Amino acid sequence: MKSIQYIQDSFESYLQSLEYARKPEALYEPVRYVLSLGGKRIRPTLLIAAYNMYSQDIERVFRTAAGMEIFHNFTLLHDDLMDNADMRRGHQTVHKRWDENTAILSGDGMLVLAYRFLSGSADYNPKIMDIANETFTGIMEGQQYDMEFEKRTDVTESEYIEMIRLKTSVLLAACVQMGAVIGGASEQDSRLLYEFGEKLGLAFQLQDDMLDVYGDPAVFGKKIGGDILCNKKTYLYINTYLLADSNQRKELDEWARYDGDDTEAKISGVRAIYDAVGIRKLSENLIGTMFNQGLDRLDQVSLPESRKSILRDYAKSLMNRTI
Amino acid sequence: MKSIQYIQDSFESYLQSLEYARKPEALYEPVRYVLSLGGKRIRPTLLIAAYNMYSQDIERVFRTAAGMEIFHNFTLLHDDLMDNADMRRGHQTVHKRWDENTAILSGDGMLVLAYRFLSGSADYNPKIMDIANETFTGIMEGQQYDMEFEKRTDVTESEYIEMIRLKTSVLLAACVQMGAVIGGASEQDSRLLYEFGEKLGLAFQLQDDMLDVYGDPAVFGKKIGGDILCNKKTYLYINTYLLADSNQRKELDEWARYDGDDTEAKISGVRAIYDAVGIRKLSENLIGTMFNQGLDRLDQVSLPESRKSILRDYAKSLMNRTI
Repeated sequence: MKSIQYIQDSFESYLQSLEYARKPEALYEPVRYVLSLGGKRIRPTLLIAAYNMYSQDIERVFRTAAGMEIFHNFTLLHDDLMDNADMRRGHQTVHKRWDENTAILSGDGMLVLAYRFLSGSADYNPKIMDIANETFTGIMEGQQYDMEFEKRTDVTESEYIEMIRLKTSVLLAACVQMGAVIGGASEQDSRLLYEFGEKLGLAFQLQDDMLDVYGDPAVFGKKIGGDILCNKKTYLYINTYLLADSNQRKELDEWARYDGDDTEAKISGVRAIYDAVGIRKLSENLIGTMFNQGLDRLDQVSLPESRKSILRDYAKSLMNRTI
Repeated sequence: MKSIQYIQDSFESYLQSLEYARKPEALYEPVRYVLSLGGKRIRPTLLIAAYNMYSQDIERVFRTAAGMEIFHNFTLLHDDLMDNADMRRGHQTVHKRWDENTAILSGDGMLVLAYRFLSGSADYNPKIMDIANETFTGIMEGQQYDMEFEKRTDVTESEYIEMIRLKTSVLLAACVQMGAVIGGASEQDSRLLYEFGEKLGLAFQLQDDMLDVYGDPAVFGKKIGGDILCNKKTYLYINTYLLADSNQRKELDEWARYDGDDTEAKISGVRAIYDAVGIRKLSENLIGTMFNQGLDRLDQVSLPESRKSILRDYAKSLMNRTI
């Protein structure tokens, strides 16, 4: 078995050495820019680690792993444009550094590039394409729900969970499954590993939502309170609203309408209501449940435990971000 | 052999009966809208007609043909957004009817949908994916060149031809080639048919540029003079500038800087210089040369002439639009 650090280092040097750029340079420059900004490379790491449970020659899946990482970065590029976000990973977003048309077209180019990596005839596997097509479709649907939820006030917890499942989880799940499928996993094991990735993704996104309220900005890597400021109907918000008494609801409604400049007041005002109803504990419980459901699926995979520890340990490390 | 009319009618009813839509509706509504606006369906018709030279069961390639038509409509959707065009085929463009984010996301969804149709495991052919990936990449590159040329004044004829080859021709060429490949054409014949499509595409685009200046608006289907108004460096403009004397160049430069409201004056002013240098005749000669080079490739394909007449006749009908 390889170490996660070895997987990450060798994949990163593969990714940075890729020669996909052709002419005109202006089409490929934003692609290289986005891929050079780093990030945790969670998706390719999951794919490679899942493959590594079955086989040692991990370089065999680097091309597929790169396709999934390129796809993920395409979604960030277009999502940032749609959200009109200025910064990503401490750098200007593509539509700010260049312009909107560049962001549209280089994003389209990245999506085609992702498919090039996933579907080249050299190592084509129809199962991989079926997983990719279904996953990418789901992610578009998740993004559409996310945009629609911004305009609605009656989003339910189950609608929210389904949205983050589509927008975030299915991509992690697909990566784990692809690694297993290429490694030769049985139908049942590849399904179990998909579900492991799906549950892990839900736990991860719910934790991300909680870090957005309770995280240490230095560790979290972005400003705290962004979801509160844009009135995002997260698990925290939806359930706090349900648990709140009439005064607290009134206060939440007032903060939602607030358009003053004191962002800190809004964040701490809403957080005080979160604290009053005890939403953090409820959220931690759900995250723990989701995560354990994921590990349970991994337990059921018909491989010796020594093979499975790589995915188990990596999943745990993903959840151990400081609150 | 089927008739072109039969191919077009049966493909259109297949396309309109497709059930690709899932939830959320708002993601799929613009896709259905765009695909319902009609258009000449040149790309799927070429693909099906090319296949029909080899085999009678044309329904076998409808799925692939739909993938290529969906891809083409995705490019129109995002191009209209980047060009900020209000109308397409007599109807509002997606970003006007809905909004920009809807156009970005539903376009992305169409690109994934195109790949779903092209790469589903049910009838997967790695050669088809290689052609699709290379073609789609080329089209993005062509669009990038097109946007860059708007800001340049020194675009050469060969740069312009290469741009329209990438932006328009390779998609037609790929469709002809795909039909032939699925039909079982030899390597050499599929290459010849690709080149036939490529030359036909160049002739077709050059004719489109000429119709934009000299066409009958009722037949052409859009306003005359659009390229002149936005100072597009077409074959006509580039060569007129080369052939113009110093007074005519000065006049062309003045019209390029003109920002008054009298669009008719600009169109007829520039057209008068086009007429003075005789660019229409030169353009017609080049179109004829390109078209004949295409037919020459078709001549070389190792099939009896009776099989090839479907593509030959359809190509001729495409070029017989009224000037």
